[in-house]
Amino acid sequence: MKFKKDTKIEILAVGSELLTPNFQETNSQYLTQRLADLGMNVSFKSVVGDEWEDLLNAIKESLSRAHLIIATGGLGPTQDDRTREALAEVLKRKLVFHRDILEKIEARFQRRGLSMPAVNKRQAYIIKGAEVLENKNGTAPGMWLETEQKIIVLLPGPPHELKPMFEESIWPRLKKFSRIQVFRKVIKTASITESQTETLISDLYPKTTSLNISTLAYPGQIEIHLTAFSGKSLVQAKRQVDEIERKIAAKLKDYIFSSNGEELEEVVGKLLRSQKKTLAVAESCTGGLLSDRITNVPGSSDYFFQGIVAYSNESKISALGLQPSILHKHGAVSLETAQAMARGIREKAQSDYGLGVTGIAGPSGGTAEKPVGLVYIALAWEKGTEVSKNIFLGPREKIKYQSSQKALDMLRRRLLKNHKF
Amino acid sequence: MKFKKDTKIEILAVGSELLTPNFQETNSQYLTQRLADLGMNVSFKSVVGDEWEDLLNAIKESLSRAHLIIATGGLGPTQDDRTREALAEVLKRKLVFHRDILEKIEARFQRRGLSMPAVNKRQAYIIKGAEVLENKNGTAPGMWLETEQKIIVLLPGPPHELKPMFEESIWPRLKKFSRIQVFRKVIKTASITESQTETLISDLYPKTTSLNISTLAYPGQIEIHLTAFSGKSLVQAKRQVDEIERKIAAKLKDYIFSSNGEELEEVVGKLLRSQKKTLAVAESCTGGLLSDRITNVPGSSDYFFQGIVAYSNESKISALGLQPSILHKHGAVSLETAQAMARGIREKAQSDYGLGVTGIAGPSGGTAEKPVGLVYIALAWEKGTEVSKNIFLGPREKIKYQSSQKALDMLRRRLLKNHKF
Repeated sequence: MKFKKDTKIEILAVGSELLTPNFQETNSQYLTQRLADLGMNVSFKSVVGDEWEDLLNAIKESLSRAHLIIATGGLGPTQDDRTREALAEVLKRKLVFHRDILEKIEARFQRRGLSMPAVNKRQAYIIKGAEVLENKNGTAPGMWLETEQKIIVLLPGPPHELKPMFEESIWPRLKKFSRIQVFRKVIKTASITESQTETLISDLYPKTTSLNISTLAYPGQIEIHLTAFSGKSLVQAKRQVDEIERKIAAKLKDYIFSSNGEELEEVVGKLLRSQKKTLAVAESCTGGLLSDRITNVPGSSDYFFQGIVAYSNESKISALGLQPSILHKHGAVSLETAQAMARGIREKAQSDYGLGVTGIAGPSGGTAEKPVGLVYIALAWEKGTEVSKNIFLGPREKIKYQSSQKALDMLRRRLLKNHKF
Repeated sequence: MKFKKDTKIEILAVGSELLTPNFQETNSQYLTQRLADLGMNVSFKSVVGDEWEDLLNAIKESLSRAHLIIATGGLGPTQDDRTREALAEVLKRKLVFHRDILEKIEARFQRRGLSMPAVNKRQAYIIKGAEVLENKNGTAPGMWLETEQKIIVLLPGPPHELKPMFEESIWPRLKKFSRIQVFRKVIKTASITESQTETLISDLYPKTTSLNISTLAYPGQIEIHLTAFSGKSLVQAKRQVDEIERKIAAKLKDYIFSSNGEELEEVVGKLLRSQKKTLAVAESCTGGLLSDRITNVPGSSDYFFQGIVAYSNESKISALGLQPSILHKHGAVSLETAQAMARGIREKAQSDYGLGVTGIAGPSGGTAEKPVGLVYIALAWEKGTEVSKNIFLGPREKIKYQSSQKALDMLRRRLLKNHKF
C-alpha cells in the first residue's frame, strides 16, 4: 500500500487488564510519538478486552476505518491471548505453524534451565502471508502483514518487548513510506483566556492541511501548537511554521512568553539572570507555590534570594514588617496589603524585585465583598509598585496556580520593559 | 434501558490533543475506577480526534457496540469542539438553544469582570431530549441522553470539570442500575519502600476473586489498594476489606499514615489541630514545596504560621537568624544547618514546631562527599530537635517531593508520640 495525506492510522491495544482501573496503558503514547516523528498522525486509539466477540468487533472496525493498524498485546501463550486467532478469523486467513519459531521459544526456556510449557506452542503460529518479527526480549513473535490497501502490525504488549521490536523491525519498514518532514512549535501565553486567544487568531487558522494549529488551555496558560508538514524538506516545513508564528505573534504580542518550550518560571529566571536582577517573594494565599515554581528551575539560587509564606497576620507583621494599621484598616486581602507585602519582602531580602500575593484560595473564607478567588498581586521594584486585582475560578489548588502564574507574568512584563528603556 | 451482565460500556474520549505524543489522557482511568465501584466493567475505550468524519465514525461505532457510552471532551467553545454537533447528527436529533444556559455562561464571565466572547454561545445548545448536567467549574454543560436501548453521556474534557459533574450528576443516575456492591479502601504509607512493603504483606494476598489487593508506588509514598466485591451486600464487601486491613495494619504499623483517602499533609494538619499545636517551616532545597503542600489543606491558616524559603546563605542568616559560623564550619547542606534552620524558624514564628530542610536537589551542585539527593531534615520542638539524613534518587522535582514527604512524616511521628504520653 501507499501512504497518502488521508491515510488513517489506528492503534488497537488488546487486553482486559487495560480496562481495569489501576492500569495505565503507555504503549500507545510511545507509538504515537514515534509515528509523529515520521510525520504520521494517529487518527484512532482503541482499547478492547479479551472477550472474543468484542475483539472481533474491534478488529473489524479498525480494518474498516484505518489503513495502518498497529495492534498491541494478546500474543501471549495463555487462553485469553487471542489477537492472533481473532485477526486470522476476520481476515479469513489460516494460521501456519513455524517449526523454527517453536525451536527458538524452546531454546529460550532452556537457556533459563526450564522446559517449555505446552501452551507456548501457540506462539509458533503465524497468520498466512505475514512476515515474522523476531522478539529478542520475550516469546511472542510480532507480525507484519501488508496488502494492497492495508498494513496490519501485531506487537507484543509488554513495553520492554514492544519497543525494541518497533525500533528494529517496524521503524525501518515505515520509514520507507514516509516522505513527509514535520516541524513543530508550541507558543505559550499568559494573562489571556482561551476565548480571547481564539478571537484574536481564529482568522489565521490555515486552510491548508499541511499546517495544523491547535489551542490547549491550562490554568493561567494557553498554548498554541503549530505543526507543519512538507513533502519536500524540513526547511519548507519550518518556513510554514515561522510564517504563521509571525502572524500569531503580531496578534498576541506580549501575551506570548515562550515559543521554545520554556515554562514561565524559566523565562522569568532567564530575564532576571540576563539583567543581573534578584527576586524575593511574599506569599499568603499561594502558600509557597510561587517559591516552589521559581526554585524548580535549576540554578535559581543565583537570582532567587528568599521567599516568605506569611499565612497569619502576625507573620505578615513580624516577618514582612507590615504596619498593623494597614491590616486593620484594609484587611489581609487588599490592594494595600499586597503592596506592603511586596515592598516589605524586597526590603527584607535586599532584592531588586519583590512580589506579594494575598487572596482567598477557598473553598471557604469568601464573603460577598471579598469572594473566594479574589487575589491581589503586587510587584515592587526600586522605582515603583504595581498591583493587580484578580478573580480566579476553580478549586483551591487551581486558584493558587493561577495566582502564581499571574505573579510571574507581571514580573516578566516589568522585566521586558527594562529591556526597552 | 436496563443493565444486564452483557451490557457493554464504552468510554469515548474526543480531542485531537489526545492523539498527540505528549498528552496523557486520564479521564478514562478515573471513569473506569468509578464504574468499577458500581460493579460495571468497561468493554471498550476509544480516542478520536476533531476530524468531522472520524468523529462521526467513532460515535456510530460506539452506538453499534455499546449500551452505555460516556463521551468526554469536545464540548468547548472553539471551532474544533464538535462532539455535540456530531452526536446530534448521528442520532438525527436537533440542537436546541437554551437561554438559561447562555445566561449562566454570561454570568460566569461577568463574575470575573469579563464579557462573554461570542463563540461561547455554542455551549448553550443541547441535543433534543437530553437532560442538561450543570457544570459548576466551567462553561460547557454536560448531557444525559437515555433511550430504551442506550444511555449516552457527554462530559467536558477538563478533569476538574468532568469529575465533579460525574460525581454529582452521573454517579447517582448510574447507581440505580447497579446490583453489585463494591467496597474499596486505600492504605497509604510513608518512610518505607515498595519492596519492604511487599515483603511484609505478600503472604496476606488473598486467593479469592472477591478481594483484590494491589500495591502502587509514588515518590515517598506506597499505597495498598483493597477492593472487595459482593453480590449480597455492601456490609459483606466491607467486612472482607476490614479483615484484610487489620492484618495489613498489624504488619505495617505506624508506616501507615492514612486509610481514609487523606494525604500526609491533611493527616499532619488534623494532628496539629487536635493537639492545638502550630507549625512554621524553613526550606532551602524544597524551595517552597513543603509550605505549598501544607497550605493546600483548607483551613491550614489555623495552625500554619509561617514559611521561609531561605535559598541564599544571606537569607538563612537574616531571615532565620543562623549563626554565620555554622554555615562557615559545616556548609549550607549539613545536619547542623538543618537543625539551626528548624530552631530558627520556630523561634522567629513563635510556633510549637519548626521544620528545617536543606539539601542538594540537583541536577548540578553535587560533590563526592555531598551528592545530589543528599537532604538533611530537622524537626525542632519545645524539648528537643531531631535530624534525619537522607539520600533521595531521581530528578530535581522528585527529590524536592520526597524531601517534603519525609519532613511531613517526621512531624506526624512526633505528633503521634504526644498522643501516647
